[in-house]
Amino acid sequence: MIRIELQVALRYEIDAHGADFIFNIHAAQTDSQKVSGEWLLVSQPVVLQVHTESATGNRRLRLRAGSGLLALRYTATVELTHHRHPPSMLAEVPVCQLPDDVLGYLYPSRYCESDRLGRLAMQEFGHLPQGGERVQAIARWVQQRISFRSRTSTSTTSAVDTLISQVGVCRDFAHLMIALCRALSIPARFTTGTDYGADPGLGPPDFHAYVEVYLGRRWYIFDPSGTSIPMGFVRFGTGRDASDVAFATIFGNVVTHAPVVSGKAVVDPGIGAEQPQHCLETLSTDAP
Amino acid sequence: MIRIELQVALRYEIDAHGADFIFNIHAAQTDSQKVSGEWLLVSQPVVLQVHTESATGNRRLRLRAGSGLLALRYTATVELTHHRHPPSMLAEVPVCQLPDDVLGYLYPSRYCESDRLGRLAMQEFGHLPQGGERVQAIARWVQQRISFRSRTSTSTTSAVDTLISQVGVCRDFAHLMIALCRALSIPARFTTGTDYGADPGLGPPDFHAYVEVYLGRRWYIFDPSGTSIPMGFVRFGTGRDASDVAFATIFGNVVTHAPVVSGKAVVDPGIGAEQPQHCLETLSTDAP
Amino acid sequence: MIRIELQVALRYEIDAHGADFIFNIHAAQTDSQKVSGEWLLVSQPVVLQVHTESATGNRRLRLRAGSGLLALRYTATVELTHHRHPPSMLAEVPVCQLPDDVLGYLYPSRYCESDRLGRLAMQEFGHLPQGGERVQAIARWVQQRISFRSRTSTSTTSAVDTLISQVGVCRDFAHLMIALCRALSIPARFTTGTDYGADPGLGPPDFHAYVEVYLGRRWYIFDPSGTSIPMGFVRFGTGRDASDVAFATIFGNVVTHAPVVSGKAVVDPGIGAEQPQHCLETLSTDAP
Amino acid sequence: MIRIELQVALRYEIDAHGADFIFNIHAAQTDSQKVSGEWLLVSQPVVLQVHTESATGNRRLRLRAGSGLLALRYTATVELTHHRHPPSMLAEVPVCQLPDDVLGYLYPSRYCESDRLGRLAMQEFGHLPQGGERVQAIARWVQQRISFRSRTSTSTTSAVDTLISQVGVCRDFAHLMIALCRALSIPARFTTGTDYGADPGLGPPDFHAYVEVYLGRRWYIFDPSGTSIPMGFVRFGTGRDASDVAFATIFGNVVTHAPVVSGKAVVDPGIGAEQPQHCLETLSTDAP
Repeated sequence: MIRIELQVALRYEIDAHGADFIFNIHAAQTDSQKVSGEWLLVSQPVVLQVHTESATGNRRLRLRAGSGLLALRYTATVELTHHRHPPSMLAEVPVCQLPDDVLGYLYPSRYCESDRLGRLAMQEFGHLPQGGERVQAIARWVQQRISFRSRTSTSTTSAVDTLISQVGVCRDFAHLMIALCRALSIPARFTTGTDYGADPGLGPPDFHAYVEVYLGRRWYIFDPSGTSIPMGFVRFGTGRDASDVAFATIFGNVVTHAPVVSGKAVVDPGIGAEQPQHCLETLSTDAP
Repeated sequence: MIRIELQVALRYEIDAHGADFIFNIHAAQTDSQKVSGEWLLVSQPVVLQVHTESATGNRRLRLRAGSGLLALRYTATVELTHHRHPPSMLAEVPVCQLPDDVLGYLYPSRYCESDRLGRLAMQEFGHLPQGGERVQAIARWVQQRISFRSRTSTSTTSAVDTLISQVGVCRDFAHLMIALCRALSIPARFTTGTDYGADPGLGPPDFHAYVEVYLGRRWYIFDPSGTSIPMGFVRFGTGRDASDVAFATIFGNVVTHAPVVSGKAVVDPGIGAEQPQHCLETLSTDAP
Repeated sequence: MIRIELQVALRYEIDAHGADFIFNIHAAQTDSQKVSGEWLLVSQPVVLQVHTESATGNRRLRLRAGSGLLALRYTATVELTHHRHPPSMLAEVPVCQLPDDVLGYLYPSRYCESDRLGRLAMQEFGHLPQGGERVQAIARWVQQRISFRSRTSTSTTSAVDTLISQVGVCRDFAHLMIALCRALSIPARFTTGTDYGADPGLGPPDFHAYVEVYLGRRWYIFDPSGTSIPMGFVRFGTGRDASDVAFATIFGNVVTHAPVVSGKAVVDPGIGAEQPQHCLETLSTDAP
Repeated sequence: MIRIELQVALRYEIDAHGADFIFNIHAAQTDSQKVSGEWLLVSQPVVLQVHTESATGNRRLRLRAGSGLLALRYTATVELTHHRHPPSMLAEVPVCQLPDDVLGYLYPSRYCESDRLGRLAMQEFGHLPQGGERVQAIARWVQQRISFRSRTSTSTTSAVDTLISQVGVCRDFAHLMIALCRALSIPARFTTGTDYGADPGLGPPDFHAYVEVYLGRRWYIFDPSGTSIPMGFVRFGTGRDASDVAFATIFGNVVTHAPVVSGKAVVDPGIGAEQPQHCLETLSTDAP
């Protein structure tokens, strides 16, 4: 079991008209990702609506803030009990056997134009045996081709853009891997969390984006950016792509300060809490 | 009340590997769109799975067909009891009051890049009073700028492409209108049906794509292509854009024959069944 | 007559491999734009090649610099004798009468995708009487729709991108106007100079990009950004778009410092040197 | 020596307004490509202007046709004396040594967005030794990745589109190869001719598009589509990309019939006229 102490602090300055916010910063609650305690502090006395999406466990916080400073602090203790499988044991699921609520993750989305990548995906990966190792090969291909570099992409950058420019951040790696999977009829979705284990040389801890792929009967974690340690990922949200699960979607004129994010592992053999580490198995925090 | 006799006939030739199909050709069932009878004939003895999506009423038919001919014939009798409101009475809903399951229709999607159109939408429509008449103005703007012409777009054409090329088919008109609405934070979705009332000079009856916009507390119908009579539309599916509700999504090597589609109004004063016609009011077949 | 004292100072730091440079910072020499004196200082003892393109008068400086600092200072005194015509007197030239060396400016180029804008250009400008006033209408249309804002575009931004985003800098205004002209079969080219007369509130004097359109028998100046005073423009280069006449095209790893640019009018009634000012006539510094 | 008998027949129907045409169907005249006889028949009694571009040898025919049928028949006897060099003997030319009139072929153009492909080109080809064999590797890479298939691209398809879709016709292969070369600072241009030696199973003889790359001190021929025999190519035009050297650029409303094209080799040992064939050497018909 992995125990993570999570902290997210956000600050905004809002103009005279106020602004609406939709946040995806709550730890999702699934059978394998349990929230044993959490606190949310909001600096304005506003109505907070938290809605849990039953299909995904995403928790969405909505609020309407008035003019001036808005500060949020979210802390949580999260316990992860991973399903672990060797990738060679994970089968791709024939389309005719996919659950109905998985089908939407086969289709192209704003930042994952899988409908344009059919030939390329078949040429690069069509000859590989189906299964978890093929999906690993896709993640590796993306990691080898794309260079990680801050501030090389924007909020409108898509998988096709990244394939051409060969540079981006974690969001771009994830979008490209998702587009390639869907082009092969493998369901894939965009998932957000924190960049547990990232090289401190790359900057302070930050939000992270990675991929979940439907194999066997679950969603399994892949990190095509290769920057972090998946075993330490706490999932916030999962969706078709970044448009679904932005950390904050803002309607109004707002100055945004840099977020402060932290996810620390509590290691305590007494309670079975281990250190997250790289492993050869494929991990899932999803219920079947 | 409107009564429509619907017929859809589809034919495919499938290669030796077989193929998976996901169809969106069943009339949706809502409080305002009742299916009083329906028949589905499939030429191959295959397992049919029909799944109804609770949030939308979409009914999705899945099947795996073997090599050779696959023919489907779907017929239904559908009764429509429209909610009718003058557009001037319909208010846009502030983001903070939108239901949770409507939020997804604010975000950009594959063919509706609303994230790129914020300035343009504000410049063209930002000064208009909010409400149903503003949405009508968007539909009119799209209709005036875009020329309807068959075979001018492809399956990868998006709203931005259409805005530049100024030509397309009903699908393209719908995508552009949706993108402009979302860019103004007005929820909008892509809806499919038949082109009731279309000029026979344009060709035989066909599938149609139009728009539903969330106003007041319902989804209201807008037809930016202006080719048909909305009062006669039977809704098949509704989703973020064409990727969600294609009439047929096919996995495999398949030759597709032209569909035969027909939606005829039964006019019978004795039972209150009227002739669909153009009207000044805005229509909804959605439950609140 | 207008006399401009021009100064351009550029600084680069070059890595150990050295770098090749192609500069377009010399004032072009035409019948109407005479260079009465000029000095070029280069901080490295390198071979300088200056090539004058006969068709355009563009002067291109090429050099290969070694590792370390490279500083250039170019100063020139330039005398402009404008051809001035009321736009209503300038006729568009039928394609069959265009000189051969003008034809290339009818075709689409990297940043001016006129081949995608035929319908839009016809819809917006097709009904206007042909001639200089139609071209003015295009410039005004671009200026009204696009917002000038620094750092909103990149080196790969094209006319179509700008049409969608509705924001950019002078380069983007010029590309969009050029693309629209070419879509109407009006030859148009991208021209560089300094931003004479720009509001100091927008920043220090800078390079500028504007448009020349072939009307009557000459190339006439249009400034769709509306930020500067065309009568004070000294032309450096003219080409199909920004790719042809970048101030500096660099091959190698180089850190670029902000350029220092200045173009000051010498007003001296004794020699007939006037103050550049906005005027209603259309100006040309091109020989027929 | 290769002798080719060339025939081109074109037919158009023009509406009541007449139309302007710019044709690039004359065989270019260079030191290595001599036109020993040619005939041009035009069905309308119109003024014909043929202009030869000195830098390239392109010959451009312009005419204004009236309403009704316009038929052209061009026949020529062309003698090719190729410069032949093993690719391993051909050096890339450092930017600082490139002739001035070659520089324009380093820049991105409408259908060759080399400015977006820098990283990709360096990753794929940056490690190879410079020279003719690297250019061959680029041609081979394009040929391996892209599938030749008729009617898969349109007049607006660019190198980036082709890189993503991995399908196209000769024009698309050429654009992609050119964009990759320029991204590596290797001058490359788009050249048109006939598809000598193409498999008759692919259809009747047709126009062809291929690539010329500046190596050593000449422009050398590369055919990334791999469909034809370069030794039999008669060059019509060469330019930045397809926009410069379309076989016909038309201004007006015109119905275009399929062209009839033929290029037959005359084999006559008596005069030294050989059969064109595939060879390992790189060929040029350009003067140094």
